[in-house]
Formats: sequence, structure tokens, C-alpha cells
Amino acid sequence: MKVIVNVKLKNGVLDPQGKAVKHALNSLGFDEVGNVRIGKQIVLDIAGDDKEKIKADTQKMCEELLANPVIEDFEIIL
Amino acid sequence: MKVIVNVKLKNGVLDPQGKAVKHALNSLGFDEVGNVRIGKQIVLDIAGDDKEKIKADTQKMCEELLANPVIEDFEIIL
Repeated sequence: MKVIVNVKLKNGVLDPQGKAVKHALNSLGFDEVGNVRIGKQIVLDIAGDDKEKIKADTQKMCEELLANPVIEDFEIIL
Repeated sequence: MKVIVNVKLKNGVLDPQGKAVKHALNSLGFDEVGNVRIGKQIVLDIAGDDKEKIKADTQKMCEELLANPVIEDFEIIL
């Protein structure tokens, strides 16, 4: 089963990478671009088809490795 | 308007970061995890409400800066 995990910085956490991209886009003439936030999208192939179990396991993977709970939020899409 | 751009490596392009995450998850006991691919999710605040124009501008932003057309594909979600 294909599982998508989107990891992004929590609101209020400074995103220097996003700021850099914003300034670059503005300097390329895309003045309409305001705030930019950059996160990770992780696509996992997970064996099995028990959605509840896979969601619970993916939650653990996020808490243990894929996301930093102090500064990041994550979203699991089955 | 909030625009989401998902940038990911093209199929066939080696993903060392994904491989490293896979091995780490397997060593944490998540043996059911097979292939792992890691991409970027960019969230842009863009002024205006003309969806067609914003989509066209975002396409240009991806081609000029946000994605490397040689090894990456991108998806624009309005």
C-alpha cells in the first residue's frame, strides 16, 4: 500500500528556506508571491492492506523518525 | 490564494535519502516498509484570485526555480 506523509514546520517556526525561496521568486519578477513554507513529502510502500494497522504503524514511524515533534507537524494520507 | 507544489524525483532517479530512511525504518523494526521516496512540498501564498493566471505563473516558477526539470517532476494543487 502506498502511504504519503507530509511533514511541515509548525506555524510560528521560522522557515529560512521558505524565506530564501520567496526572495528568489520575487527577484525573478513573481511579485505576487507572499509567504512560502517548505516541507517534506515522504512516499512509503508498505506491505499489507490493513489500513488501521498501517496508519497506526505510520504514526509511530513519524513519531520515532520521520518528523521532529518539537518543530514539525505531520499528516498521513493512505 | 494558497498553492501547493509537490516536487519529487522522477521514476528511475536514485533516491539516496529515501534509501537511508528505508534502512532506518527497517532497523527500527518496521520491516513492512519497502520503497521510500522523499520529495518537497512547497506551500505558497499568492496574491490574486484568477486561478488560470496563478496556475500559469506557478508553472513558470516551477520551471525557473522550484523544480529541476532534468530529474524532478512537479504537481500544482490550487
